[in-house]
Amino acid sequence: MSKLKVCAFTVSIDGFGAGPEQSRQTPLGVGGEELHQWMVSTRTFRQIQGSAGGTEEVDDGFTKRSFENIGAWIMGRNMFGPIRGSWPDDTWKGWWGNNPPYHVPVFVLTHHARPALKMEGDTTFHFVTGGIHEALERAKEAAGGKDIRIGGGVSTIRQYLEAGMIDEMHLAISPIFLGRGEALFAGIDLAAAGFQRTEHAATEHAMHVVLSKK
Amino acid sequence: MSKLKVCAFTVSIDGFGAGPEQSRQTPLGVGGEELHQWMVSTRTFRQIQGSAGGTEEVDDGFTKRSFENIGAWIMGRNMFGPIRGSWPDDTWKGWWGNNPPYHVPVFVLTHHARPALKMEGDTTFHFVTGGIHEALERAKEAAGGKDIRIGGGVSTIRQYLEAGMIDEMHLAISPIFLGRGEALFAGIDLAAAGFQRTEHAATEHAMHVVLSKK
Repeated sequence: MSKLKVCAFTVSIDGFGAGPEQSRQTPLGVGGEELHQWMVSTRTFRQIQGSAGGTEEVDDGFTKRSFENIGAWIMGRNMFGPIRGSWPDDTWKGWWGNNPPYHVPVFVLTHHARPALKMEGDTTFHFVTGGIHEALERAKEAAGGKDIRIGGGVSTIRQYLEAGMIDEMHLAISPIFLGRGEALFAGIDLAAAGFQRTEHAATEHAMHVVLSKK
Repeated sequence: MSKLKVCAFTVSIDGFGAGPEQSRQTPLGVGGEELHQWMVSTRTFRQIQGSAGGTEEVDDGFTKRSFENIGAWIMGRNMFGPIRGSWPDDTWKGWWGNNPPYHVPVFVLTHHARPALKMEGDTTFHFVTGGIHEALERAKEAAGGKDIRIGGGVSTIRQYLEAGMIDEMHLAISPIFLGRGEALFAGIDLAAAGFQRTEHAATEHAMHVVLSKK
């Protein structure tokens, strides 16, 4: 059955999934890039970026799995870009160039309608103005039985968590603190939500934890 | 110079340093005991409890260091015991039996005066009603140039953090979530407080991070 999953999502030891003050220069907020050191150094991530080499151990395993059996993505508008309010034009096409690393339909949550955007490599961005339920319905249809991955950011994950709709989360805790930023779990009771820890592994760069619904 | 330190303090991936509903049966709150699996299995901890064996690697190293060069402890009243309000009598002598694992003066923050309590093995509990500054002053005097360790709990650490008085913190992030409990860092900006990460290490049981003042 198709699962709604969070994969390879990183939080700091003080609980932030992104730094403050996201901008075109700092897509992950101030200090946010450092969160992802564990992933950036993996073979899988380097391959996606067209480079060779990289680590092949636990960190790479989780990175690889995060792309497996994914039929559609859902992401928040802030993950798609730094623009707020209505779209000034159709120039902004995401952070990822002409061939984004998704290769499946991607449903972007936004309050501002925009025509679907077909990119190279089978990625199409669909802009959903009807909220998280509509986005999930459309993603399910598009995914053809495969899993749906919520990319982020924090606010999108929190909305799906609070609605009780997430089946599985792989989190990587990075050994850094950010001080400020977007808190992933503040006010959310993961135990009451029915999660249990089904897997964990530690590396020099991150502590990996998989939470699944009972 | 004498430092004010937090050592071997464990938090869950959702940021809790203790579970909810502390009681005589659950000194660390519901689910809180599980936080400390990394420490309980070490050789040093087992020795303290009079047992042999135990792990001797990274987890043990941090446990060992947490007791080194400590001249005095400061702890909150809830770490000392489950009783709230005024002391009904002098019967409660801490969770640790007649010979507590401190062996130095321990300053207990409380609103309710009580005579000092001399235990076996050179531990004396002093009950401080004048707040965190008074407790630190008295601990410094007693420590004779050695370091002062803040035992906990969460509320005591937060008070000293907010006052900008902590020099160093060794935190162990345990690969569990509690859902509810006492949040260690909520609303506290560790970066603005002047900390930097000076050490980190990962094991199967915990991610260790040392934060020190710049």
